[in-house]
Amino acid sequence: MPVYKAPVEDVMFLLNDVFPIERYNNLPGFAEATPDMVEAILGEGAKLCEEIFTPLNRIGDLEGCVRNADGSVTTPKGFKEAYEAYAAGGWMGLSMPEEYGGQGLPSTLTVVMQEFLSSANLALGMYPGLTQGATAALLVHGSAEQKKTYVPKMVEGTWTGTMNLTEPHCGTDLGLLKTKAVPNGDGSYAISGTKIFISAGEHDMAENIVHLVLARIEGAPAGTKGISLFVVPKFLVKEGGSLGERNGVSCGSLEHKMGIHGNATCVMNYDGAKGWLVGEENRGLNAMFVMMNEARLAVGVQGLSQSEVAYQNAVAYAKERLQGRALTGPKFPDKPADPIIVHPDVRRTLLSIKAFNEAARALLVWTALKSDIAHRSSDDAERQSADDHMGLMTPVVKGVLTDLGFDNAVKAQQMFGGHGYIEEWGMSQFVRDARIAMIYEGANGIQAMDLVGRKLGKDGGRAVMAFFNEVGAFCQENANDESLKDFISPLQQGLGHLQQATMWFMQNAMAKPDNAGAGATDYMHLFGLVAMGYMWARMAKVANEKKVKGNGVADKMDAKLLTGRFFMERLMPETASRLACISSGADVTMAMPMEMF
Amino acid sequence: MPVYKAPVEDVMFLLNDVFPIERYNNLPGFAEATPDMVEAILGEGAKLCEEIFTPLNRIGDLEGCVRNADGSVTTPKGFKEAYEAYAAGGWMGLSMPEEYGGQGLPSTLTVVMQEFLSSANLALGMYPGLTQGATAALLVHGSAEQKKTYVPKMVEGTWTGTMNLTEPHCGTDLGLLKTKAVPNGDGSYAISGTKIFISAGEHDMAENIVHLVLARIEGAPAGTKGISLFVVPKFLVKEGGSLGERNGVSCGSLEHKMGIHGNATCVMNYDGAKGWLVGEENRGLNAMFVMMNEARLAVGVQGLSQSEVAYQNAVAYAKERLQGRALTGPKFPDKPADPIIVHPDVRRTLLSIKAFNEAARALLVWTALKSDIAHRSSDDAERQSADDHMGLMTPVVKGVLTDLGFDNAVKAQQMFGGHGYIEEWGMSQFVRDARIAMIYEGANGIQAMDLVGRKLGKDGGRAVMAFFNEVGAFCQENANDESLKDFISPLQQGLGHLQQATMWFMQNAMAKPDNAGAGATDYMHLFGLVAMGYMWARMAKVANEKKVKGNGVADKMDAKLLTGRFFMERLMPETASRLACISSGADVTMAMPMEMF
Repeated sequence: MPVYKAPVEDVMFLLNDVFPIERYNNLPGFAEATPDMVEAILGEGAKLCEEIFTPLNRIGDLEGCVRNADGSVTTPKGFKEAYEAYAAGGWMGLSMPEEYGGQGLPSTLTVVMQEFLSSANLALGMYPGLTQGATAALLVHGSAEQKKTYVPKMVEGTWTGTMNLTEPHCGTDLGLLKTKAVPNGDGSYAISGTKIFISAGEHDMAENIVHLVLARIEGAPAGTKGISLFVVPKFLVKEGGSLGERNGVSCGSLEHKMGIHGNATCVMNYDGAKGWLVGEENRGLNAMFVMMNEARLAVGVQGLSQSEVAYQNAVAYAKERLQGRALTGPKFPDKPADPIIVHPDVRRTLLSIKAFNEAARALLVWTALKSDIAHRSSDDAERQSADDHMGLMTPVVKGVLTDLGFDNAVKAQQMFGGHGYIEEWGMSQFVRDARIAMIYEGANGIQAMDLVGRKLGKDGGRAVMAFFNEVGAFCQENANDESLKDFISPLQQGLGHLQQATMWFMQNAMAKPDNAGAGATDYMHLFGLVAMGYMWARMAKVANEKKVKGNGVADKMDAKLLTGRFFMERLMPETASRLACISSGADVTMAMPMEMF
Repeated sequence: MPVYKAPVEDVMFLLNDVFPIERYNNLPGFAEATPDMVEAILGEGAKLCEEIFTPLNRIGDLEGCVRNADGSVTTPKGFKEAYEAYAAGGWMGLSMPEEYGGQGLPSTLTVVMQEFLSSANLALGMYPGLTQGATAALLVHGSAEQKKTYVPKMVEGTWTGTMNLTEPHCGTDLGLLKTKAVPNGDGSYAISGTKIFISAGEHDMAENIVHLVLARIEGAPAGTKGISLFVVPKFLVKEGGSLGERNGVSCGSLEHKMGIHGNATCVMNYDGAKGWLVGEENRGLNAMFVMMNEARLAVGVQGLSQSEVAYQNAVAYAKERLQGRALTGPKFPDKPADPIIVHPDVRRTLLSIKAFNEAARALLVWTALKSDIAHRSSDDAERQSADDHMGLMTPVVKGVLTDLGFDNAVKAQQMFGGHGYIEEWGMSQFVRDARIAMIYEGANGIQAMDLVGRKLGKDGGRAVMAFFNEVGAFCQENANDESLKDFISPLQQGLGHLQQATMWFMQNAMAKPDNAGAGATDYMHLFGLVAMGYMWARMAKVANEKKVKGNGVADKMDAKLLTGRFFMERLMPETASRLACISSGADVTMAMPMEMF
């Protein structure tokens, strides 16, 4: 049975030392988030994840969800109770506004909890996760009445939420979507159509399900400019908030998936279901983007989460499994063989995962804090710059953290040899579950195009220039710090490669956009490496300082520094080959005739 | 339902043009293998794979194998008949000696057929595959009587074979194995112990199963020097060859695996089973290595096989799925959207798989031909150099082709977006099936250590120097060929990186073996890139020549050249980062205290 221990200590290192949240005491909700309070909250959350969610992970994988003859869906044994415990603990509303029953704490804490939750049980964590995204969309774009009707119930967790975008013939290209909305004449619309891949579309955990649905109002323009967003509850809500009759939306079937079996992935049939417009007519994509950006960050978190839990289990195995002897002679001569963690290739593999995990977590916490600033600061310039950061980093976090999160789950599985392939050990599930994160909320190729085609040039490149300036300034400021020399020089080199790649796009992709398309994925990964390298440099600086101060943390800070040096030596060199691929351009890629593939 | 078309034409390009087998007419069995004959044989084999094996692939995944209450195992519907068709077609004996009922044709053809078979149905292909490995071990190390008793039945496919190495507490480190062999006094031994992960250990396809089992004779030395190999038939064989009583070996349970569900992966219980020594006492590992080397090449083939079939399905989908418009404007304005194959990132992904597949196939055919030379040539020097090549390339082929084969199956799955995650589309199965190839027959980290720790230095580095000389000479000879400039220069650079890495090991790993261990996996991949780059350079040279000759193949040769240029531009740059990782050494990797992981 796989184990999991939430990395609270590593998070506290980030929140107390690397990006001290105390600095943001002026923001609403932050003053309450004192270090002690944060540690206590995360400790409670960790307990919930470790004790309630983790043991249900394999059960969920084995049982899956079942659609009953009446169209209802039964989730795996224990899921309902676990979800209720989560809701009862107030976790749904941790960062939600107090006026709707939330606690108004920094959303950074919710992001951290998403990591714990997803590591413990990815499929189960999706039910609250999607609800939070749907709630965010309603908070931003819903009418006062919609907010009053739905948000308090979603914050308390009595109702859950979904997002309905994909249709059988369209996923990425939402302009093709066909689901229809016909005005009923009473302010509501009759929604008809089929949506697929709807996570948590139907289940037995909540009293009601609040579907946010993209549809086309009769007579709306073709393409993406004719799409509107609707709220469609499973049960209609009566005046006063009690539940009325069943709406015309139902689960037609469940998908048979490679993983996340505990999540009910539904085909949803809308058959004249009653829905209400959210936000402006034909501006549905705009409204949905609030939810999608939230969801994309959460999916990036999922990438890290599977890497982390797979790592923890691989380390435990590598310390126990006796096989062979260290190359330099027996390390445990009293045992029949050494534990495999003595072998350099095993250590290299484990360290490559660890070095990613800690950098990815830093990148997420940094970005989540920017999200809090973007939403809560009263300073226009600060808000804008935080918003720039979010826009730029969202595709990087989603694309890079899920690609590498999956790779790392595979690497961790490899540590188990043949046992890794056997389902009982649980490593296969981490791999199968992690796989979806590269696909949903915009496949990673789309993230790369979002970064290169949209985010780079936005506002004259303001966001990317700010990032380059910040990293460059950090390198300059610390160029003479001998204790950081293993960090600054590779970071500078990586930044140089990223800047060259950016320049190459500016010179070669304006006239020939295929040059951007063919280099986009390499660029996204190059960007991710530099962003994580920057996180390591910042963590190393803090680790050096804490080491000097003592307080009994020297060993841990040494481990931090070693892990960071590993990242710099072993992961950063890839920036050079990414640059080479990008600057080879699109000619060969585009020249191949379609029939020759 | 996934499709598959065996790449006969690409194989014929290799066998007729790149490594013309006509050149080897002096070897036994090769004179019969005329180009027309080879094409006819492979055409028949392709048909069998496409029409019989492919349609059973998903059925095998869904049904899996079932162990019945009496310990017998039922394979998925249709497997038995498909296997019988394969055996009846004489495919088991394609390259086996004529005196045992085989056809004596080049074993290269068997390797090619293994690719087709594994693409069509990896799990089903394992039953004949393992039998061929067991037959090879008996042919080399078995007594005359053992060969007479077992080999003809295995060649005709009436009996199948297995290899039994792994035990619950030992896989890689066979020195720990506990299975016991006690002399019965009549020349036979009583074998007792538990073996795990035994592929095709029990099933309903054959009349008898011939287990090759590693065990320790009572009183034998500890460690690997006390291990002997035994042949243990499921049913004892009477004088004259008919089947006698059931032997004391049975399937205790089947493993629940991530993939290859159609393969019966058994826990085998040996309870005083009657076995006979194969080869010399305490030299069992040596005898088993014949089988293991054969099996490692076959597993490399499996890596390619899943990459190829996943690619074919991804291409078909990318040509059909309409989503978005080309960056340079609609390519199919009459359709609601363009097929996704117009998008540069989709083409880049598909080409990266195609460029690997064709290079990997060339590497396998080249290596298989060396195997034929090593086994059939009467020229000592030629045999030795072919054997050197085999030893050097076996870990590269196994490790690199399975790592990249899996990565490519994942990439191909990604082309399907959300549909790729749904089991009905079949892409998940390719990923899950491909995953095992990185693990079994020596996990890929072990392959890397075999390459770096054993093969590099063997015979004073004779094998690796011969490889460097061959590639270097090719580069020099073609340095002024303008039509090869896109190939020679990156190949030279890659070779330079490989030579530097080799030199670095010579200077740094003698005194500190951890430096070899920490760089082994990077080195294996660096080696694989250079070997595949060399294959591309050779194919490009031939493609240029064929293009000049005309004969209506110019378009196909252009496609070959484009694919090769893609490899050089987009895959070869990685050699630089691999070198950087290797030469960063082991210090950081080894410095981390065990408790800090």
